[in-house]
Parts: sequence; C-alpha cells; structure tokens
Amino acid sequence: MTSTVNLLSTSKCFGGLVKRYSHYSECCACEMKFHVFEPPAATSKPAVLLFLSGLTCNDENFITKAGAIEYAYKNNLFLVCPDTSPRGCKIEGEDDSWDFGTGAGFYVDATTEKWCKNYNMYSYISEELYNIVNKQFSVNVNKWSIFGHSMGGMGALVIALRNPGKYQSVSAFAPISNPVDCQWGLKNFSNYLGTDDKSKWEQYDPSILARNYKGSHIDILVDQGTEDNFLEEQLKPQTLQDACEANPQHLALSLRKQEGYNHNYFFISTFIKDHIEFHAQHLNQQ
Amino acid sequence: MTSTVNLLSTSKCFGGLVKRYSHYSECCACEMKFHVFEPPAATSKPAVLLFLSGLTCNDENFITKAGAIEYAYKNNLFLVCPDTSPRGCKIEGEDDSWDFGTGAGFYVDATTEKWCKNYNMYSYISEELYNIVNKQFSVNVNKWSIFGHSMGGMGALVIALRNPGKYQSVSAFAPISNPVDCQWGLKNFSNYLGTDDKSKWEQYDPSILARNYKGSHIDILVDQGTEDNFLEEQLKPQTLQDACEANPQHLALSLRKQEGYNHNYFFISTFIKDHIEFHAQHLNQQ
Repeated sequence: MTSTVNLLSTSKCFGGLVKRYSHYSECCACEMKFHVFEPPAATSKPAVLLFLSGLTCNDENFITKAGAIEYAYKNNLFLVCPDTSPRGCKIEGEDDSWDFGTGAGFYVDATTEKWCKNYNMYSYISEELYNIVNKQFSVNVNKWSIFGHSMGGMGALVIALRNPGKYQSVSAFAPISNPVDCQWGLKNFSNYLGTDDKSKWEQYDPSILARNYKGSHIDILVDQGTEDNFLEEQLKPQTLQDACEANPQHLALSLRKQEGYNHNYFFISTFIKDHIEFHAQHLNQQ
Repeated sequence: MTSTVNLLSTSKCFGGLVKRYSHYSECCACEMKFHVFEPPAATSKPAVLLFLSGLTCNDENFITKAGAIEYAYKNNLFLVCPDTSPRGCKIEGEDDSWDFGTGAGFYVDATTEKWCKNYNMYSYISEELYNIVNKQFSVNVNKWSIFGHSMGGMGALVIALRNPGKYQSVSAFAPISNPVDCQWGLKNFSNYLGTDDKSKWEQYDPSILARNYKGSHIDILVDQGTEDNFLEEQLKPQTLQDACEANPQHLALSLRKQEGYNHNYFFISTFIKDHIEFHAQHLNQQ
C-alpha cells in the first residue's frame, strides 16, 4: 500500500516542473513534505537522483539554492528532495537544538522509546519514499543514485553502503564521515539509538561501513571545502578516505579538497554540475 | 565622502567571492545591507551588473536563488544585490503589509512627510550605492548595467530611463510596467509620493518614461511568464511594449512571453543565463 501524495505547488523550471508534495508517512507517523523536479518529457523515462539535505534544512533548501535543476534538465534526471526529519511530533525537546531533533533526523531509525515512533528517516528514505517515487511518478525504477550535504552526505553514504546494488552511484558535499567519533554524532546517536549497544551506531557510520563493505562496486565522489568551519571537529573526510583505501576491491572514492570553500550552498552550487554529471554517467550506463 | 562599508561575511563561489556588507546610508538614514559577487581576478576590471529584487525580498534572495553567479563568473561581471527598502526605521505601519513599507521601497524618493526621511531608494540605488561600489571595489566604473524582478524590474527600467548613458543595458523579469495604473502602484505611490501631484508618479512609471524617452539608445530585454498570477492586474507588459514601439528611435524592447512560467525564482533561474549574457554583450562593447 502506498500512501496518497498531495500536490502543494507546481512551478515550471528549465522546461520541466518543480512540484512540492505532502503525504502521510507510515515510517515517521506524521505528515512529510518533499520536492521533485520532473524533467521535460523525453523518449526515455528519467533516472532518479535523490538529495539528502543537512542540519536545519527542509525540503526547500536544495531545490531553491543549489543550481541543480539546470543540470538535472540537461541530463534528464528526476530529482527528489525530502525533508531532514519528522516535524511537529510534539516530542519533548524536539525543537530545543538546531543540531538535534527537528531538522536533524540524522537518517537513522531510532530505537529509544522517546524517538522510535517518529524518527525513522533511514527507512523513510531508503524504503517508503523510494517506493512512493517509483509508484507515483514516471521514472526508471531501476536507476537510482543518491547524494547529500553534511548530515545528508552521511545519510547518502550510509544508505548506499547498506543497500548494495540499489543505487548506481553516491556522492557527498562535506559529509559527516565518521559520526561515532564527533560531537554531532555522539549527541544524535546517543539520543536516537541509546548508549547501551554501540554496534547500532556503527550501522550509521560511513567510515565503518566502508571499511567492512563487501557488496557490488561503488564509485564515490566527495567534495570538501578547506575553509569549512566543521571540517576538523565534525566531518573527518580523511577517515572515510582511509577506509575506502583499505577496501579497493569494492570502493573507489574520489575525495577532492576544494581550496577556500566553506560549508554553505555557495560551495554546493559551484560543484553541483560535477556531481550531477558524475551520477548521470553512472545512471546512463547499460 | 563615502560611508564606510563593513564586511559581514565572505564565501567562495565559482572561484570568486560572495561578500555581504552593511553600511550607514545617508539617503535612507539607516543601516543598509548589500551582497556582491567579485569574480576571480582577471586581466580586466569587471563591469558591474546591479540586480534589484522584488516585493518581500532582501539582499539575500537573488544571490542565493537565481543561479546568477555561475554566469557572472563566466562573463567576468561584478554583481551587486542591494536590499529592497530601508529597515527598522520605526515608522508607524512600515511592517503592516507585505506589499508596502519594509521590503517594498518601490525604488522611489518619497516626498510625503512620513516617509521622506528614509524611503529614498531611487537616490540610494542610482547615486549612493553607485558611488560606493565605484569607490570601494576594483570595478570598471564606466561599465554598469541594471536589471531586476517585479518591483525591481520596474526600478531597473526607471533608473535606466531616467539616467541616459549611465547603464549600458537594462533587463527585467516580470516588471511592474505601468505602476500608475495598478493596485501595487496606487498603494505605494499614494503613500510615498502623495496624491496631490500625479506628475511625481510619472517619474517612476516605466511605460510613461519609455514613451517620452529621448536619450541615447537603450536595448531592453524583458521576460514574462504566461502563468504569472500578477500578470493581468499588476504587471501589464503590453503597455511597456506599446510605449517602446512608439519610440523606436531610442528604445528597442525584446519582450519574451515564456509559456507556463510563473512569478518566482524557478522562472528567474531558467532565464538568468540569457539576461547575464545580454548584459555582458553590451558591457563588453568598446
């Protein structure tokens, strides 16, 4: 059973349509919103490219600020831009922090009593929304790739590494690469997953997953600005690079250090063309 | 004397720098903010392209949402993005409407007692900010063009038509083309300029100015979406077209009706490349 999606708005852009939808999410037990970009009708059904946003964002930031639509149009890709957390669930403390709770679902399935009813963004993205998009839109259901920014870069890497074959490629802008070993990860994982069983945390850590990954080969593109204020304390791309280099049979990471760039959408918009073309190359292979 | 500008933030983008500044405006008698994009250092000083935003916007909307930076970089243009009104002036009623007061300076010099101390966006844009940019930044002071959206498209047309030779070209997305004859114009002009002397209003009406324009030749590019909710009641591009066609010696308007587009940044971003290349062609002429 797929939930009904409700069209909230439509805007023409680069000959295609930007649409915003809401729907009741079974995974999150609340109403969720997402944006899509449908490229202009072509002879072939578009492949799907899913973007996961970072802390404090909702489903609007990427579609309005990244400059992605021009390149999705040029490469006949169907963009999907979900929200970053459940909203309005009336859980005590959900709105107290900018880096935890609302706007910060961390793409996990929560296991603690307080959060487990709603905060299930891992299953929401990798199963529920995946099925909704494949059933409700005219897309190539066998061609998906995934990317994201910061917390969403982490989510994209985790979802790709835990679902071999489901995504043709994965990329990230400034991903949280080793969340079990940074303050953002400790704060969110301890609340959503508890502190008793740290093996649960490892299921959401890109570097640990990359080191142990044995599935079909994945190409990974990561861009990291050298002036990113979160680089040293929170992001730790070197740990991901070390993990991928230890697993060369299965993973090929291209980590590009972009001199002078910081953590915002001015950085993302500069390199969005490269990321979309990277995914288009993988999605358009036979 | 030029006021000091204070740098608020810097972000690298497409090899250049997006910077936000604040400064005390003599014209508006308050602190004002603006964004610039400095393209990467080139052998020639960049020409200046000024964008005026529409109702409800501030200095952030265009620089973050229009996808303009990629094309400013490719054409070696220095972008300037001012705010749309004075802010925080504590004038009774300034924050009561979305289409009047704060966020809606209408690019006029107010003459009514209540508004004339602060609401002088016409002189702020065409004189004060023009001088600040020419003195504070490494730009080609003889090469300026101007464009804008909606209220800002109106402002760009008005400022270009009232200052022959100052701007090499002018363009607009969905401009308010005949404000003396629409509700937005009536509301703002009657408050800022009073109702006693309607000849004051005509100094801010693109269609009336175009019909009477006798300065050096100006090329004008206007894009208008056919699904724009404000088209019939507020924008009236046909009146501008009629005025330009009555004055072919001095004005050449290309009015493009873009099928299916509405009034938002998804429309602007689709055609921003065309507008920036239009200005670059005019600015790079000898």
